[in-house]
Amino acid sequence: MTRATPERRRGRQLPTTEELRVWRDFLETTESLRSELASRLQVESSLSPGDYAVLLALSEAQDRQMRSSQLATHIGWERSRLSHHLGRMERRGLIRRQECRTFPRGAEVHLTPTGAEAFRASTVPHLRAIRELFVDALTPEQLHAAGEIAAALRAHLGPQREE
Amino acid sequence: MTRATPERRRGRQLPTTEELRVWRDFLETTESLRSELASRLQVESSLSPGDYAVLLALSEAQDRQMRSSQLATHIGWERSRLSHHLGRMERRGLIRRQECRTFPRGAEVHLTPTGAEAFRASTVPHLRAIRELFVDALTPEQLHAAGEIAAALRAHLGPQREE
Repeated sequence: MTRATPERRRGRQLPTTEELRVWRDFLETTESLRSELASRLQVESSLSPGDYAVLLALSEAQDRQMRSSQLATHIGWERSRLSHHLGRMERRGLIRRQECRTFPRGAEVHLTPTGAEAFRASTVPHLRAIRELFVDALTPEQLHAAGEIAAALRAHLGPQREE
Repeated sequence: MTRATPERRRGRQLPTTEELRVWRDFLETTESLRSELASRLQVESSLSPGDYAVLLALSEAQDRQMRSSQLATHIGWERSRLSHHLGRMERRGLIRRQECRTFPRGAEVHLTPTGAEAFRASTVPHLRAIRELFVDALTPEQLHAAGEIAAALRAHLGPQREE
C-alpha cells in the first residue's frame, strides 16, 4: 500500500476536485445512513440514537452502572449535553442517577429494569437494520476496507484532537 | 469482487460480532470527524455545517438563488427545519428570501453579498481541514475505496428510503 507520506502532504494545501467529490459523497452518504437508522430506531423502539448509546454503554458496564464522567467519555459527548439527556431519560424511567459518595460532584448512572427491557427489545430490530443498510450493502472486501478506513481516520484524528 | 448476493443475505438475520465491530468503528469515527470539522468551521469562520451547506448550494446555483423546496431537497433537509434555519441566516444577512410569483407558497432564496463573502472567506480553511483530516489520513487506495463504499451504501439506501 502507498503510504500518505509527509512529502505527499506538504506538496499542496487543498484537496483536488476528485478528492473533494469523494469527501462529499462520503459525508452525505454516511449522514443519510445515520439518519435512516435513527428514524427506524425511533419508529420501531421509541429510542433516539443518544438513548441507544447510553443504554448500550450501561448494558455493557460492570454492575450496569457508570460514573457520568466515564459515560460522557465513553460515548464521546460533552458532560453538559449528557447531563441534560440523562435528565430526560431519568424522567422516562430508563436510567436512575445517584450521588456518588467517593466523587461528591459526580453521579453514578444506573440502568433501570425499564431501561434494560427497552434496550433488550430494541436490539434485534436495530441490529437487523444495521445488517440491511450497512453490512449487506457492502462486499466482504468493502466491509474490510471500511474497517481500515475508520482505523486510519481515527489514528489521524486522535493526536490532533488533543492539541 | 465477491458480490453481496441474495443468498448471502437470506442466510442470517443479524450481523456477526466482527461486522458489528466494523460498524461501530465506522459510525464513531465518522461522527468524530464530522464533529471536529464542524468545530473548526465554527472557530475559523463562525459558520455551522448547516450554514456552510446552504451557502455552498446557493454559490453553485444559477444566479446564486434557489427555490426553498429545491434547496431542501438538495441539502437533504426537511422543509420545516430548513425554514427555521433560513430565518436565522436571514437575520445575520447571509441570505435573503423573496416570495416567488410563479409558486405562491414557495420562496426564492438568494445569496447576499455578505453571504457570498462569508462563504468565500470560509472556503480555504474548510478545504484545508478536509484535506488534513480526511484526504491525508488515507492512502490513495483507501480514498478510492471510500468512494466505492459511499456509492454502494447510497445505491442500497436509495430504493429503501422511498418505500
